[in-house]
Amino acid sequence: MRRGESAGTMERAWIISIGTELALGQTVDTNGAWLARGLAELGIRTERHVTVPDELPAIRTAVRQATDACDLVITTGGLGPTDDDLTREALAQAAGVELVLDPASVERIRAFFAARGREMPERNKVQARLPRTARMLPNTCGTAPGIAMQLSGTLCYVLPGVPFEMRAMFEQQVAPQLKAIAAGPVLVSRELLCFGQGESDIGARLSDLMVRGRNPEVGTTAELGEIGIRMNAAADTPQAAETLLNETEREIRSRLGEVVFGRDGDTLAAVVGELLVKRGKTLCTAESCTGGLIGKYLTDVPGSSRYFLGGVVSYSNDAKQRLLGIAADQLAAHGAVSEPVARAMAAGARTRFAADYALAVTGIAGPTGGTQEKPVGLVYIAVAMPDGVQAREFRFGGDAPREVIRERAARTALNLLRLKLLARERGGASGVGPGRGVRG
Amino acid sequence: MRRGESAGTMERAWIISIGTELALGQTVDTNGAWLARGLAELGIRTERHVTVPDELPAIRTAVRQATDACDLVITTGGLGPTDDDLTREALAQAAGVELVLDPASVERIRAFFAARGREMPERNKVQARLPRTARMLPNTCGTAPGIAMQLSGTLCYVLPGVPFEMRAMFEQQVAPQLKAIAAGPVLVSRELLCFGQGESDIGARLSDLMVRGRNPEVGTTAELGEIGIRMNAAADTPQAAETLLNETEREIRSRLGEVVFGRDGDTLAAVVGELLVKRGKTLCTAESCTGGLIGKYLTDVPGSSRYFLGGVVSYSNDAKQRLLGIAADQLAAHGAVSEPVARAMAAGARTRFAADYALAVTGIAGPTGGTQEKPVGLVYIAVAMPDGVQAREFRFGGDAPREVIRERAARTALNLLRLKLLARERGGASGVGPGRGVRG
Repeated sequence: MRRGESAGTMERAWIISIGTELALGQTVDTNGAWLARGLAELGIRTERHVTVPDELPAIRTAVRQATDACDLVITTGGLGPTDDDLTREALAQAAGVELVLDPASVERIRAFFAARGREMPERNKVQARLPRTARMLPNTCGTAPGIAMQLSGTLCYVLPGVPFEMRAMFEQQVAPQLKAIAAGPVLVSRELLCFGQGESDIGARLSDLMVRGRNPEVGTTAELGEIGIRMNAAADTPQAAETLLNETEREIRSRLGEVVFGRDGDTLAAVVGELLVKRGKTLCTAESCTGGLIGKYLTDVPGSSRYFLGGVVSYSNDAKQRLLGIAADQLAAHGAVSEPVARAMAAGARTRFAADYALAVTGIAGPTGGTQEKPVGLVYIAVAMPDGVQAREFRFGGDAPREVIRERAARTALNLLRLKLLARERGGASGVGPGRGVRG
Repeated sequence: MRRGESAGTMERAWIISIGTELALGQTVDTNGAWLARGLAELGIRTERHVTVPDELPAIRTAVRQATDACDLVITTGGLGPTDDDLTREALAQAAGVELVLDPASVERIRAFFAARGREMPERNKVQARLPRTARMLPNTCGTAPGIAMQLSGTLCYVLPGVPFEMRAMFEQQVAPQLKAIAAGPVLVSRELLCFGQGESDIGARLSDLMVRGRNPEVGTTAELGEIGIRMNAAADTPQAAETLLNETEREIRSRLGEVVFGRDGDTLAAVVGELLVKRGKTLCTAESCTGGLIGKYLTDVPGSSRYFLGGVVSYSNDAKQRLLGIAADQLAAHGAVSEPVARAMAAGARTRFAADYALAVTGIAGPTGGTQEKPVGLVYIAVAMPDGVQAREFRFGGDAPREVIRERAARTALNLLRLKLLARERGGASGVGPGRGVRG
């Protein structure tokens, strides 16, 4: 699979991120993920990411291993003007050539400073030193030039670590060059998002699609109750890949039905918002243990003021009485974390905000406050609708951290409302069975 | 540097992140950075991070290279119940042993489902298959057990990819074991957290402390207006490192004063909470553009029900009138995004919740809704106190994304309240100047 100078395949890449702050975890590397997505769009698959500190032997070894293993290597970082920027030197050592000053690069750096009314500090000249066999990649937004060179027959691009400089250099110079020579099929991805069923259940229903070697590949990920079904399609053209993805998406949706709530970056809150807009309805919230998180999710969506009227965070019993009109004897009889209080919160909010729908949540997020009868993780969620109030009990696991219980509760509440709105759209009676606690 | 079974150094680690979505850049890996920071605290330096897709040969090769190169290997990901979770199998292959079902793990997984009122899906049993020579690490917040084993004499910990499960397992089980055997000089980190001043201003006031080679090293990071000052101290013992950190912390605090709001993982909401508890006071909120985010931050803190009574998310004019008692003519005269309305929101919430303090925020988070006079990013924040209401105007930058404006607004509001509470603690008149808009 080794690529020659002019032709051959270019399918497999390694990405090397260079920086002591990255290796020690003081900064999270986002360059690697960004580059991998850019390469995938060109049909180049990233087989490995490597992060090493600003140390000569570490960088040199990583570059050599990479050039032995793949068709394309992209590095980021270590091109600055200070003593801990060693990527140029390491690259020259890996190639067995010396560093030479590139006069054109010196002039570009000098011009960069001049445009900002400054003289080039002498120190920045070091950035113009390139391995003898390398080609300079101009930096349009900073001082560090990039480097392109062949190393043991593998094409290497060496880019700066500052994300916006790196991105501009990749888009303006690297991607066009790669597009001209990349020979692999394109890889197009799509993700379906699910809620309301566990990863293993979904996996069981899709197991025949999740076999290795299938195209599109299908895999699942899970986070806080949200299951992502990722599909990666390889094809000669983006159009052909999209067609493959459409077929697999149709198949998955036909199996999972309403468990699928969206695609690629959708959120439950945004999907609920679209359903409300479609029906011309409004929503309000009454939150206890989630403390404003549902409101936060809803208002993350630009334009949510079209349907979200507002909410009450009733974090104390007093607030539940004063702002939601819940009777003191009801709180005394059932406790704040109870199905009747969840119902009363939803109904109270719906009336006070004059909204069509209200979502209410009350529960015990922990870590303290649980009892044997009402353990940490116990949450009641109620939906008040034009034709009544429905409530359900959930147990989100008392051993989960407070934030996890709160996130799960907020997402579960939004999903409940989504299902109610879908049921109505189908003309059903929103799934309300006889006697299932409906109130007017 | 190879570690024996019982003694020797444990200085250099590799971290392997496993997941096709990570390799293709569809998800940014944060586990690697988090683990590297945790290892540094134990005196173990991360020499390399490697990310590979969910593929048997790729995982196997990465594990073998790592065990050849360092003293400690930690992997995350690929322990789920579905067919694309191959870490267990790859580990067994790398070790040349078979996978066997661990009855204790099966029981733990069964119990996990039982606690949630569910039966264990048969498929999850696969998560209890461990390499014959491995030891199981119980998962306290999920189904996937972790794995600890020696591989070619190198210690390997295999952890789940879900961040909160991984973190709990590392903190509860891996870190204590490593602490017992780690032998390097310790690197202890501490971070001071600041709000209310920019990174370059803070950098200028600390430039003599931020020189290379100083011990502790001092560096700054910035995120959404919060500036972190990171100090890394190297010493033979944790106590010696702490002493160095204490000295530098004292120096920084003496220069920056109240700009420093906390340390290591403190949040503005938690610090405000402590001040309220100390004074025996209560708080409520009235949020418009932040939509519940301040309430969310406040209730992220366990025990916040001691002082946080609740809030109103008044996302519509109607809600501002109905739930906060703001006069229609006031809204008409000044607009919802105005200083008088911010004041009225704070005062209205304070009365309705019968709280000592109220925080109110109204603004334009964008991306639409701005005008020349009231651009995106314009935010009014008011604090209602026992002795009056104060309000301030902020401009958080119309080119910033919606979420950034909202985060900045929420944090700025909490910081304003913090400064008011500190001023009172000092016996000052909460910084209220004559005529500075105080109302009764």
